[in-house]
Amino acid sequence: MDEVKVGIAGLGRLGKVHANNICYKIPGAKLTAACSVAEAELEYAKNELDVSDVYTDYLEMLKSADIDAVAIVTTSSEHCWQIEAALAAGKHVFCEKPLGINEEECKAAERAVEKYPDKIFFLGFMRRYDPSYAYAMQKIKEGAIGKPYLVKATGIDPESLVEGSIKFCSTSGGIYIDMASHDIDLMRWFLGDEVTEVYALGCTFKHPEFEANGDCETGCAMFRFKNGAIGQIHVGRTAAHGYHIETEVVGTEGSIRISPVPAKNLAMIYDKNGAVVECVGSFPERFADAYVLEMKEFIACIREGRKPDVTVYDGTKSTKIAYAAAQSLKEHHPVQL
Amino acid sequence: MDEVKVGIAGLGRLGKVHANNICYKIPGAKLTAACSVAEAELEYAKNELDVSDVYTDYLEMLKSADIDAVAIVTTSSEHCWQIEAALAAGKHVFCEKPLGINEEECKAAERAVEKYPDKIFFLGFMRRYDPSYAYAMQKIKEGAIGKPYLVKATGIDPESLVEGSIKFCSTSGGIYIDMASHDIDLMRWFLGDEVTEVYALGCTFKHPEFEANGDCETGCAMFRFKNGAIGQIHVGRTAAHGYHIETEVVGTEGSIRISPVPAKNLAMIYDKNGAVVECVGSFPERFADAYVLEMKEFIACIREGRKPDVTVYDGTKSTKIAYAAAQSLKEHHPVQL
Amino acid sequence: MDEVKVGIAGLGRLGKVHANNICYKIPGAKLTAACSVAEAELEYAKNELDVSDVYTDYLEMLKSADIDAVAIVTTSSEHCWQIEAALAAGKHVFCEKPLGINEEECKAAERAVEKYPDKIFFLGFMRRYDPSYAYAMQKIKEGAIGKPYLVKATGIDPESLVEGSIKFCSTSGGIYIDMASHDIDLMRWFLGDEVTEVYALGCTFKHPEFEANGDCETGCAMFRFKNGAIGQIHVGRTAAHGYHIETEVVGTEGSIRISPVPAKNLAMIYDKNGAVVECVGSFPERFADAYVLEMKEFIACIREGRKPDVTVYDGTKSTKIAYAAAQSLKEHHPVQL
Amino acid sequence: MDEVKVGIAGLGRLGKVHANNICYKIPGAKLTAACSVAEAELEYAKNELDVSDVYTDYLEMLKSADIDAVAIVTTSSEHCWQIEAALAAGKHVFCEKPLGINEEECKAAERAVEKYPDKIFFLGFMRRYDPSYAYAMQKIKEGAIGKPYLVKATGIDPESLVEGSIKFCSTSGGIYIDMASHDIDLMRWFLGDEVTEVYALGCTFKHPEFEANGDCETGCAMFRFKNGAIGQIHVGRTAAHGYHIETEVVGTEGSIRISPVPAKNLAMIYDKNGAVVECVGSFPERFADAYVLEMKEFIACIREGRKPDVTVYDGTKSTKIAYAAAQSLKEHHPVQL
Repeated sequence: MDEVKVGIAGLGRLGKVHANNICYKIPGAKLTAACSVAEAELEYAKNELDVSDVYTDYLEMLKSADIDAVAIVTTSSEHCWQIEAALAAGKHVFCEKPLGINEEECKAAERAVEKYPDKIFFLGFMRRYDPSYAYAMQKIKEGAIGKPYLVKATGIDPESLVEGSIKFCSTSGGIYIDMASHDIDLMRWFLGDEVTEVYALGCTFKHPEFEANGDCETGCAMFRFKNGAIGQIHVGRTAAHGYHIETEVVGTEGSIRISPVPAKNLAMIYDKNGAVVECVGSFPERFADAYVLEMKEFIACIREGRKPDVTVYDGTKSTKIAYAAAQSLKEHHPVQL
Repeated sequence: MDEVKVGIAGLGRLGKVHANNICYKIPGAKLTAACSVAEAELEYAKNELDVSDVYTDYLEMLKSADIDAVAIVTTSSEHCWQIEAALAAGKHVFCEKPLGINEEECKAAERAVEKYPDKIFFLGFMRRYDPSYAYAMQKIKEGAIGKPYLVKATGIDPESLVEGSIKFCSTSGGIYIDMASHDIDLMRWFLGDEVTEVYALGCTFKHPEFEANGDCETGCAMFRFKNGAIGQIHVGRTAAHGYHIETEVVGTEGSIRISPVPAKNLAMIYDKNGAVVECVGSFPERFADAYVLEMKEFIACIREGRKPDVTVYDGTKSTKIAYAAAQSLKEHHPVQL
Repeated sequence: MDEVKVGIAGLGRLGKVHANNICYKIPGAKLTAACSVAEAELEYAKNELDVSDVYTDYLEMLKSADIDAVAIVTTSSEHCWQIEAALAAGKHVFCEKPLGINEEECKAAERAVEKYPDKIFFLGFMRRYDPSYAYAMQKIKEGAIGKPYLVKATGIDPESLVEGSIKFCSTSGGIYIDMASHDIDLMRWFLGDEVTEVYALGCTFKHPEFEANGDCETGCAMFRFKNGAIGQIHVGRTAAHGYHIETEVVGTEGSIRISPVPAKNLAMIYDKNGAVVECVGSFPERFADAYVLEMKEFIACIREGRKPDVTVYDGTKSTKIAYAAAQSLKEHHPVQL
Repeated sequence: MDEVKVGIAGLGRLGKVHANNICYKIPGAKLTAACSVAEAELEYAKNELDVSDVYTDYLEMLKSADIDAVAIVTTSSEHCWQIEAALAAGKHVFCEKPLGINEEECKAAERAVEKYPDKIFFLGFMRRYDPSYAYAMQKIKEGAIGKPYLVKATGIDPESLVEGSIKFCSTSGGIYIDMASHDIDLMRWFLGDEVTEVYALGCTFKHPEFEANGDCETGCAMFRFKNGAIGQIHVGRTAAHGYHIETEVVGTEGSIRISPVPAKNLAMIYDKNGAVVECVGSFPERFADAYVLEMKEFIACIREGRKPDVTVYDGTKSTKIAYAAAQSLKEHHPVQL
């Protein structure tokens, strides 16, 4: 197949990451159109990405632009209808996580994906494509740790970006919906099983604004899986040292742990503080490769007529489980799924 | 004060560790008597420790031996009455953890300790004396991580010793009572607060014998503290790499983590497997220094008339919380304290 | 400036790396021509890189191809005359290290570069562009370790590739010329000074073929700098664990060390061997980013009319110093520069 | 055999370490006498160690004290004659390194040791008894890294103690004699071979006092062994992060590295600086266990009639090689042995 022409919807922080990747880092892909409600983002598309075919109306882009596929990087609440519209317009779809912000939306997206089986639908659970996570999964498949039965996941945003977290916390759906979907997806992926119960706690010790807005600064939850396996999640927003994503998968014959030290690079400084490793500062820095690799896989799926490993159902499940965690936190008891 | 003369009760695996420490590593202490129901252990005392004043009857030792203090390293179910008897006989008491195997016993021990305020009672929560844990506490007190609000604790026995775990699991009270008391004590110590609720899960994936005996191979629990702080515990019995004790304390300004790699020593081997660090194989190896340092502190408390930081109430609380975890696991709902 | 059109000379292992980077990873660059004496490599250019304008004659490419710049990734002995010819033909030049294989050649290349001051000449000391090395230099410039006065560099090829090393060792000029040029460049770069004396040793303990061919399996050398600073180099070819590149810069206020563990990724496996980190297997894996970043800088220099930090003189000096080390090893005494 | 009665000569910083170990940490040993020219040190012996039999005259102690053995921890220049006198008086001898301060002295000590073959002579190369170094040797003997052929050793005193280094540098014999003897011994031990040539450099970048006193702040040397193996040493005095002792042994099938991070304990702090490991501050802290273990071995050799692995000849060789390094530095050419 020839070059895949992609239109992007949304050019915020993460939208710019995807747009630049499509432009410059994905052989076989070309960014040919862009859509945004923000004028400055369209200027960015024209000036920095050399994309002149820009739109303020998403449906107009679907109708008029010369595109084979869309990359949806808009606000979470827009994802599901934009997926449906794109598939109906005959486009392949890449959609950032989360799939949707409630189960009904997600179910509608599922039906749309089922209705157009010849179109590729790709959900952006990019951590699965991060070289370290992909390596972990490969080792697990090779039997390196036996049967996995426990996933311990930590995800903490840096204190340096806490202002943004505070600003959006009242509308984000709360810490579990906002921050835990990648971890929930990884648990399901590594354990190969489904959650049946969740028990969640939360606390706020540094920035009372989180509590004042009905959210939590830190969340800790436990997940029980159908086969008896267990998940533990710790999400937070105030890491002093940077952006801390750490995951451990425990199996019957060993365990594998990813980035207990979220090192910025391979250097260690020995100075009056001791032996010091500087840490990554943000998710675009930590997962730069993962964003490229997932988009490569999306384009490869289109060109080779393959279905991606991540499905629309993974999106629904992640959303459902995050909502159950939010409910458990609010109602203070375990919630069954 | 002159040298403190100590009689030891119990010369099993851990009893031998304490006995040797008292004999050879604690200035100001002298092992002068030993008591055991096992003849071989008394032979050990005579031949290896040069202690000729040996007993098969604990009360007889209290009555006849030339001792200022006793070190109780017997079966858990004997601890509480032996504490009472020793105090009543005018002896200072060192007692291995756990304090007792149910709350009533512990309360009786509390009353005995209160009745003899001039006697030192020291409970062997030795991890507090481990140089790395003591350093962590010191840093926390100095403000290095701000206000601590989350403790994540992992304790996994080595697969190499799993036969023993299986053998005793039907009588040990279950994984939380058997294995979590140190972690529970550390959570309370680091957070400076009390548990109000516990929710516990368990699973068995490698050795079905645990399940068959009403126990679990692995346990994961969450603890809610009065001030909103949270504890997460993961205990297990099948670590392929060795004896894995790891603890992280998360605070408002940073966090501190102890032994994510339970390294045997300071060497790293680069070979065809990669860069490899061999791990410690057992608790006597990992905590050799801690056992010496706690006994030094016990002797120092006696000689200087100081009260130790660990109290009899810490023992009761640790036992109560472990029982609540066991109950939560069994009844499958959160348990209030 | 418009897109920079690049012709590549040489499409061996490293040539393919550069060609793919120019094609897919460097905004503002386009690979428009390729030259190789190997038919299979030209087929590769056509089929994999979509470059149809291919040549077997380098001068013919310079004359006929629509290119602004050439990337020279040919055999070391061809570098210098190809540089001269390209500059004379009005092309910007990227040349892989080493600059040349003897000082006379290098001097001729210097004169050519001086003769065409409006053309960009870029020498591929890519380690300077590796994120970890660049970070180290930035920290040093910021004063993090005070005045640097000692560089300790280790570079060991993997045992898995030793067949290739043995095959080429009789024609490669020996271990210092073959393997030490990056380390020599880094020493000069970090210390900001010039070598005045070198003393080199060598040994062969695993593969006698190296010695039989007049080469060494392992080389250790010390370098004295004009200002008194010191360099230590250890180069080898038989690392069991992978491709080991490690560098430490010691300064008056601290030191900085890069990749003591050449980790493949961020994962650690805990299994019966202990805590294990798998290592990178080759230079294209270790320095994938560095190859992209140096080529980006080459293209940016052309488009912005900037001169790169690495100069042709750095190439001459690196070659001279490597020859002095080879001479010291052979004649068994220190050699002055 | 009964308890070994030991008299100590010298109660400075290291003498106190040994004296305390003999008193409190070595089963089967008893400190019964002490000798020092410093009155305060004899007071220390009486008050802190409960040793009342004290001497200002070494020969007097040999003659009058009730001792089986002496531990010589005096100034280096006194070692050799004190060894001879003690052996002649029928005592077993433990002597701190270095054996002596020149080859003649060492040869005289050798003859004395040979003359009294039934007496134990133990030289304090304690690093061989450090658990990590001993583990490395054991792994090497088991074949873990094949045939060892390169040792890279680093030893840097902490900047916090630099005043003392400066004070004594004019009389210490220079950096190689003062600081390299442990590293030289380890090279010989790990490689199982003898040095034939040494080439040494030195520099001073932070504290000009070293240079002004004819010494160097930092020394780097290379050693050629009879069998072709190589040693690299880096010694210094200004480590910002603490006391840095690191050694790597490279073999045909792998390598083993000891303490690239001289961690104070098992804790890592994550704070605004990144992930930070605090480092050890001094040799008594780093090698506390090694000092105990070597003394245990000395006592065990006496009691069991065994000869220690370290011999008097190891002492002579270490001294000779250190002198050759000092000569190479001074005369600026390689020196043959």
